Amino acid sequence: MELLLIIVAIASVLALSYACFSYFKVKKMEEGTDKMKEIASAIRVGANAFIRYEYKVIAIIASVVAVVLFVLISWQTAVAFVLGALMSASAGWIGMKVATYANARVANKAKETNSIGATVKVAFRGGSVMGLCVGGFALLGILLIYLIFGLGLGQIDATISENTTEGILLAKVLGLAPTFTNTLSGYALGCSFIAMFARVGGGIYTKAADMGADLVGKTEAHIPEDDPRNPATIADNVGDNVGDVAGLGSDLLESYMGALTSGIILAFEFFRNKVVTSELLARYMIYFPMAFAGCGIIACVIGVFSMLIKKKPSDNPHRELNSSTYIAAALSLLSAVLLSCLMFKNVDKVDLNASGCFKLGIVSPAVCAALGIAAGVAIGMIAEYYTSYDFKPTKQVSQASNEGPALTITQGLALGMKSCMAPVLLLGFAIYGSFLIGNMYGVAMAALGMLSFVSATVSVDTYGPISDNAGGIAEMSALDKEVREITDKLDSVGNTTAAIGKGFAIGSAALAVLSLLTSYMYSFSAVGEDVSLDLLANPLILVGVLVGAALPFLFSGILIEAVAKAARKMVEEVRRQFREIKGLLEGKVMPDYKTCIEISSQGSIKEMRVPAILSIAIPVVFGFIFGANFVAGVLLGATISAVMLAIFTGNSGGAWDNAKKYIETGAIDGQGKGTPAHDAAVVGDTVGDPLKDTVGPSLDIFIKIMSTVSLVFVVVFNKYNLFGLLGL
Amino acid sequence: MELLLIIVAIASVLALSYACFSYFKVKKMEEGTDKMKEIASAIRVGANAFIRYEYKVIAIIASVVAVVLFVLISWQTAVAFVLGALMSASAGWIGMKVATYANARVANKAKETNSIGATVKVAFRGGSVMGLCVGGFALLGILLIYLIFGLGLGQIDATISENTTEGILLAKVLGLAPTFTNTLSGYALGCSFIAMFARVGGGIYTKAADMGADLVGKTEAHIPEDDPRNPATIADNVGDNVGDVAGLGSDLLESYMGALTSGIILAFEFFRNKVVTSELLARYMIYFPMAFAGCGIIACVIGVFSMLIKKKPSDNPHRELNSSTYIAAALSLLSAVLLSCLMFKNVDKVDLNASGCFKLGIVSPAVCAALGIAAGVAIGMIAEYYTSYDFKPTKQVSQASNEGPALTITQGLALGMKSCMAPVLLLGFAIYGSFLIGNMYGVAMAALGMLSFVSATVSVDTYGPISDNAGGIAEMSALDKEVREITDKLDSVGNTTAAIGKGFAIGSAALAVLSLLTSYMYSFSAVGEDVSLDLLANPLILVGVLVGAALPFLFSGILIEAVAKAARKMVEEVRRQFREIKGLLEGKVMPDYKTCIEISSQGSIKEMRVPAILSIAIPVVFGFIFGANFVAGVLLGATISAVMLAIFTGNSGGAWDNAKKYIETGAIDGQGKGTPAHDAAVVGDTVGDPLKDTVGPSLDIFIKIMSTVSLVFVVVFNKYNLFGLLGL
Repeated sequence: MELLLIIVAIASVLALSYACFSYFKVKKMEEGTDKMKEIASAIRVGANAFIRYEYKVIAIIASVVAVVLFVLISWQTAVAFVLGALMSASAGWIGMKVATYANARVANKAKETNSIGATVKVAFRGGSVMGLCVGGFALLGILLIYLIFGLGLGQIDATISENTTEGILLAKVLGLAPTFTNTLSGYALGCSFIAMFARVGGGIYTKAADMGADLVGKTEAHIPEDDPRNPATIADNVGDNVGDVAGLGSDLLESYMGALTSGIILAFEFFRNKVVTSELLARYMIYFPMAFAGCGIIACVIGVFSMLIKKKPSDNPHRELNSSTYIAAALSLLSAVLLSCLMFKNVDKVDLNASGCFKLGIVSPAVCAALGIAAGVAIGMIAEYYTSYDFKPTKQVSQASNEGPALTITQGLALGMKSCMAPVLLLGFAIYGSFLIGNMYGVAMAALGMLSFVSATVSVDTYGPISDNAGGIAEMSALDKEVREITDKLDSVGNTTAAIGKGFAIGSAALAVLSLLTSYMYSFSAVGEDVSLDLLANPLILVGVLVGAALPFLFSGILIEAVAKAARKMVEEVRRQFREIKGLLEGKVMPDYKTCIEISSQGSIKEMRVPAILSIAIPVVFGFIFGANFVAGVLLGATISAVMLAIFTGNSGGAWDNAKKYIETGAIDGQGKGTPAHDAAVVGDTVGDPLKDTVGPSLDIFIKIMSTVSLVFVVVFNKYNLFGLLGL
Repeated sequence: MELLLIIVAIASVLALSYACFSYFKVKKMEEGTDKMKEIASAIRVGANAFIRYEYKVIAIIASVVAVVLFVLISWQTAVAFVLGALMSASAGWIGMKVATYANARVANKAKETNSIGATVKVAFRGGSVMGLCVGGFALLGILLIYLIFGLGLGQIDATISENTTEGILLAKVLGLAPTFTNTLSGYALGCSFIAMFARVGGGIYTKAADMGADLVGKTEAHIPEDDPRNPATIADNVGDNVGDVAGLGSDLLESYMGALTSGIILAFEFFRNKVVTSELLARYMIYFPMAFAGCGIIACVIGVFSMLIKKKPSDNPHRELNSSTYIAAALSLLSAVLLSCLMFKNVDKVDLNASGCFKLGIVSPAVCAALGIAAGVAIGMIAEYYTSYDFKPTKQVSQASNEGPALTITQGLALGMKSCMAPVLLLGFAIYGSFLIGNMYGVAMAALGMLSFVSATVSVDTYGPISDNAGGIAEMSALDKEVREITDKLDSVGNTTAAIGKGFAIGSAALAVLSLLTSYMYSFSAVGEDVSLDLLANPLILVGVLVGAALPFLFSGILIEAVAKAARKMVEEVRRQFREIKGLLEGKVMPDYKTCIEISSQGSIKEMRVPAILSIAIPVVFGFIFGANFVAGVLLGATISAVMLAIFTGNSGGAWDNAKKYIETGAIDGQGKGTPAHDAAVVGDTVGDPLKDTVGPSLDIFIKIMSTVSLVFVVVFNKYNLFGLLGL
């Protein structure tokens, strides 16, 4: 079995080395004209300054959390938490760094070669660094966890059979012991913790700048996007890097680890609670997700490599990017089939059948993974249908813009709300199918399946903002029109992949949380007892579901307000500069970019704390007051409404964005930029910005952070809670 | 026990006679100048024409439903359904009719007397007709049900013990039998059915006219509200009557019956399933809600009477209206205490304790009712906090209007989302508290408590649109400014009461649905078996919850789109008239009101069908495919997300509306009508219109219609469903 850990080690090293190679390869390229260098440097400096500042704040809060974990739970959990946080922060930081190098180089390559294919390769190479870092660091961290804490191969038997090592400090006094479950959850919590701050902080940053730039620039001053006269334009480009690159990287790493650990923990809890009685089977069920993840990352390295090796990529970026993802996905799925056949064939058929997790025989986990992938792709395609202007829904939003901003908003809200049903049906199908095949373990494998080729999808997802930034630099450096055309073409291509990526993110989150919730219920139930989440028998669970369902609304409301607050400050500053700096609008004087960068930076650092801390504190506080069953209800309720809100906000926001673009093509009664219909569409786009880029992507982190933090703390608050003490 | 039915009969007769008296009293009053008569007549003719057309369409669809019920379930259920529909339709129709008489008479009273007190009395008299009709017809219907179907006092023993009368046609072939549960559910379904069409149809009508009038009138032509030059203005006033009066009346009658029948059915199912084993106790538990409802309506008659008897009401309409409601609420609660003491004292203590529904002794049902009332009032006050411009949240929305429409919308969305948590916590508190005291029967009593004085709250709720209409008539008839000031003052007063009314509506809906859901689970479980809604054991329930949660989003999306569609047609028509009718904007020529009325009318009739039919068809279709457990999950999921959406849409919409009004007071940087901030606020108000007046109020009907239709059909689809047949 050591072989399996070796696979993981190989995958991690392979991914990180290739990322490292690409990093320096990108850095070595020509950056372009002096003007380009100047702008790129301004963006880079802004992004680095923000990330440093952000990480400093996060480090302080993380230390507090680590101390609480150390005191209340165990040193193991605290260390695992810190390790998770480090891995996630590293991936985000490196990925962002390379993105800030790649942007100008992409523009320069377009300028020099005038070839789409050659330019795509640079952008994709930049994106692949983030993609491979996400996979590589995630596996590296979990490998370290296994090696350090005796959760490794040799010691796992001891851990499984004893499940009690020494507690620390208060934990010892309270008679608590660190468990496999809460140590591994600590790691996942660390990843989620960074992701939450990065997503929320980056999301507020980028949208405050974006909204500020648009509200005054486009709507009031009627100057184009990325116009160098707009004071918020550098901040806007910095925002792409800190939000869409660093934020996205940490987010996906968190999703990936959420899916992976939920499967491992569930297998462990199944064994501890005698749902799975064979020790051999349990061990295989614990190792399978690891091995699958390792093979998946190797598959991604191959997929990325197959694209970057090409001497002359075609001029169809869509095909090039897709082929890389398809190769990774296919190889990853193939590895799942092979692994499940190779591993589970050693287990006694009787044990397999008794577990209830292998209704389709030894390939069951692979089938569930395939089911997850299929559902994720379909969910993404539905999002594409609702948000692309090739289809009716978004066209209707464009059409409504003729009647002014109010009906644009109304139509977009209606679209987002209507769009929830189809993806939820698919998600339901995936849950039901994988549950029938492999019980909740099957559901966890479906989640992992969606994310097994995460490095490939993140590479493409990161390619998008890099191209976007390249376009901005081309615009601001007054490069030829053709350069901008190439970067625009690059930028427009990533959309489908991004939509599918979003489908994976929320889909896998829902599945992973269900599996975590099951582990949670097992983790405090008596061994051998069937767990139940019976809403009619226990009003606390029922009320928990209701309160939990309100949480994502509260969280979203706080986030939207945070963005609006920062954006309003930005609007005032941009207006002030237009008013006070003479000659700015005529293009004679440069605006004061730096103040805008500071406003975004300070605003987001200030505003990110409350929502992020809330997501960690709420389940713990609820647990200490109302007990473990209430929290179970809260997790379930929050998951349900987070799924709805994520789809609703994502699709409404996407549709408004593209409805505006559709009007710019002149397709609606010949209306284009500067017409009333376009102004109305810009209002829609602006409303949609925080919804689709701040709220939507944060919601999946929100439910996972709540689940993992509950899983860590349940040993304590199950014993000590107010309602329990009062006998209610 | 016959005494109890006599109380109900007395209450019904009393309420209806007093309504009848007030109806003719209002009609006898002077209507005012010829111009006023002309306008009032135009409104009346429009409203009557629409209601007749609407009822015709509803009658056709209702007939189809009745036939399906007759064939698949039983003739009893079909007749009960028709009876419920008739009661609800009658209340809505009569209430609307008197409102269309009262509007001009209110304006005229203000003109003649110049006294606020005297004017309030007329408006309240008009409103009280609807209020008393709601209570009177609801009780009349349920009385008839009891008398006709052997669910009456004498025969209830037979019904309880046998629980099988003869099935009809297909029902007979399938071996099904009508039950107490599905007959009474049929009645509730009939009420909900009319309410759904009236709310949705009326809601689309009124908002299409309102948005159409505002979008062109206020935003483009910059003419004031209710300006006679605006072609949509009569349609807008008709809309108030068909939406805010007739729609509201049917809605509240439905809520009331939902709460009442859910308690009765639950008591019956508790007995049938041996949760309550004493027959005496069961009978009292079945009769208590009826008796309580009867006393509550008598209390309302007294409350209304105490206001209308006054020779000289004070000039503080707020106090006058509140005192009437408070008297009704206090008497109603008092009756609950007396009734529970008188009734349950006859039951053996051992039986009481064994039932688990009387943890606080014989007064338990009354305590639960009080808990419900307290929660409902608190929820309403929170809504008031979020939506009144006396408080910070709405002021912030006003402030954001300075930055244009996008941030107005963003701020309002954030407000609505944030506002979900507090009411949900209160609701959770009420559920948990009443469950601890009286099990799910306690929860049902809490729901009934909120609505026990429904006639008083509806009277005040209807008073609002009547005053609003009076103001419109005063404006259009060019009456003195003072008249408009009086009607404006009247109009502004109803808001708090209306907010609390909304709190009752959604709060009681959630509680009633939980109780219906419990009955639903019992209704197909084996006798003596504990029912459970265990999400982890049964993936179908879990998936059902997820899919159910998407339903209110789908429903809301369809509704919003329906309003937008009708509104866009209206916008085009108003624009056309402004463009083509020469001299219209100068006030020389009258606009063509009739075409606008037709557009609203046709649009709403056309658009109301899909959402209304959907709400009935979906649970049945799901049931026949996936079986009863899946539907249970769907009901739960739908309830949870409907509660969130109702609060979110209600508060966002309310805040936008009042943020606009706040700007009109000049409080924001001296901005008033016609300034950019006001234009931005009007966009917010327009977006909020369909949210707060169409979507929000329909959601509580939506979840109740789904629950009752499931309760009716579960006997069939529990036996015959695709998944069951496939053995999944």
